[in-house]
Amino acid sequence: MTTDWKGPQQLPADADIQDPSQVLGRLADVIASRRGLDPSSSYVARLLAAAPDAALKKVGEEATEVIMAAKDGVPDRLVSEMADLWFHCLVALVQAGLRPEQVMAELARREGISGLDEKAARRAQQKA
Amino acid sequence: MTTDWKGPQQLPADADIQDPSQVLGRLADVIASRRGLDPSSSYVARLLAAAPDAALKKVGEEATEVIMAAKDGVPDRLVSEMADLWFHCLVALVQAGLRPEQVMAELARREGISGLDEKAARRAQQKA
Amino acid sequence: MTTDWKGPQQLPADADIQDPSQVLGRLADVIASRRGLDPSSSYVARLLAAAPDAALKKVGEEATEVIMAAKDGVPDRLVSEMADLWFHCLVALVQAGLRPEQVMAELARREGISGLDEKAARRAQQKA
Amino acid sequence: MTTDWKGPQQLPADADIQDPSQVLGRLADVIASRRGLDPSSSYVARLLAAAPDAALKKVGEEATEVIMAAKDGVPDRLVSEMADLWFHCLVALVQAGLRPEQVMAELARREGISGLDEKAARRAQQKA
Repeated sequence: MTTDWKGPQQLPADADIQDPSQVLGRLADVIASRRGLDPSSSYVARLLAAAPDAALKKVGEEATEVIMAAKDGVPDRLVSEMADLWFHCLVALVQAGLRPEQVMAELARREGISGLDEKAARRAQQKA
Repeated sequence: MTTDWKGPQQLPADADIQDPSQVLGRLADVIASRRGLDPSSSYVARLLAAAPDAALKKVGEEATEVIMAAKDGVPDRLVSEMADLWFHCLVALVQAGLRPEQVMAELARREGISGLDEKAARRAQQKA
Repeated sequence: MTTDWKGPQQLPADADIQDPSQVLGRLADVIASRRGLDPSSSYVARLLAAAPDAALKKVGEEATEVIMAAKDGVPDRLVSEMADLWFHCLVALVQAGLRPEQVMAELARREGISGLDEKAARRAQQKA
Repeated sequence: MTTDWKGPQQLPADADIQDPSQVLGRLADVIASRRGLDPSSSYVARLLAAAPDAALKKVGEEATEVIMAAKDGVPDRLVSEMADLWFHCLVALVQAGLRPEQVMAELARREGISGLDEKAARRAQQKA
């Protein structure tokens, strides 16, 4: 289990705003706020200081952990490892100057295209 | 680039509801709706039918693509590969009977704990 | 299972020389001989033509397959997936202008250093 | 760079026998000799004690490092990371009760089949 970014120095006191659907954007804000800080001050500052390899290495590691947790069929561990993977994906995005909202938009765009394509396909089929 | 799940047969016509922050939950619904369908009917049905390895293999593959896109420093490709990675993470979650909201909640929980811990640490420091 | 490089067009007729300990070097020769060939002529030529990402993507994929086969505890599949992983490692080495013998030498060097260090450590301990 | 298994306590004093082509088999012997030892006594004993996940996690990690080193185009680092990857592959094999010679034999077998197939294909083509 990877618990090394859960310490108090790593994430700020935003305990008031806790809407899960916004959590990726909020975490990206936190991560971005760590840019340029003393690497010894926080785990995220350390990852960002060793850009891009440190965060990318964690993406590879956590993907491996997700795969092993899924093979073991332990739901709690899968959720926990997936949280680790997504967190480090956010670090990778932020260090590339990107936002999770852009990934969401890309997913929504594909969903929309699929929807429109599907409607078109259905219409085409009805005509045939 | 991995574009093989973008076809019209794969995602439904939910083009009306397009709030990006909800997109992970919505995609999970779509993926769940493919369970038990004829594998030849959709890419997701095929992944789910070959559970759990097919989706997990894609998680490993797409993590690799994310790492390479990040090393190349091409933002558009990184967004696109990250979308692929998160999509296949959703398939892995759904096939384990889990929801992205649980991962978000875990991330929010850690964030909250961090916030509370940080406040406690600050208080402790002020007293010292 | 990844069987896509096992076809007859992919590896040459060196069935006479079959010393397993030399197989990595021999495969590297074969792979190197595919450089610059028409990508449609062989799987390896295709990988090399799409350098470096195609081979590296396979390294990531096959590492994932190794992990899943090991978790499943199916020895035959682990051997087969490990062969796939090592084969694509060889392609990655060749396309970087490297040889498996250099990796072996590095492993032997560490082994040697370890041995020498261990002897030194033992001597130091005996003197103390 | 992953240098954590290079210490003197990890590999034995076999500095006399240094034929690179035999190094994988020799390392497998060393790794196998660590089975059941006190995990605090050596890095390999620790990996084996946490079987199978500890070694498999390293396979995922080192594959990621190989990919990043290859993308960076730094030959020395690629050799070093590849050595790390193959070493942890050996640990994964040993803990599954397997030997690198079996992977080599599988690679040789495919090579042989390919050779035979290629000859057959050529003969078939000449006849046609």
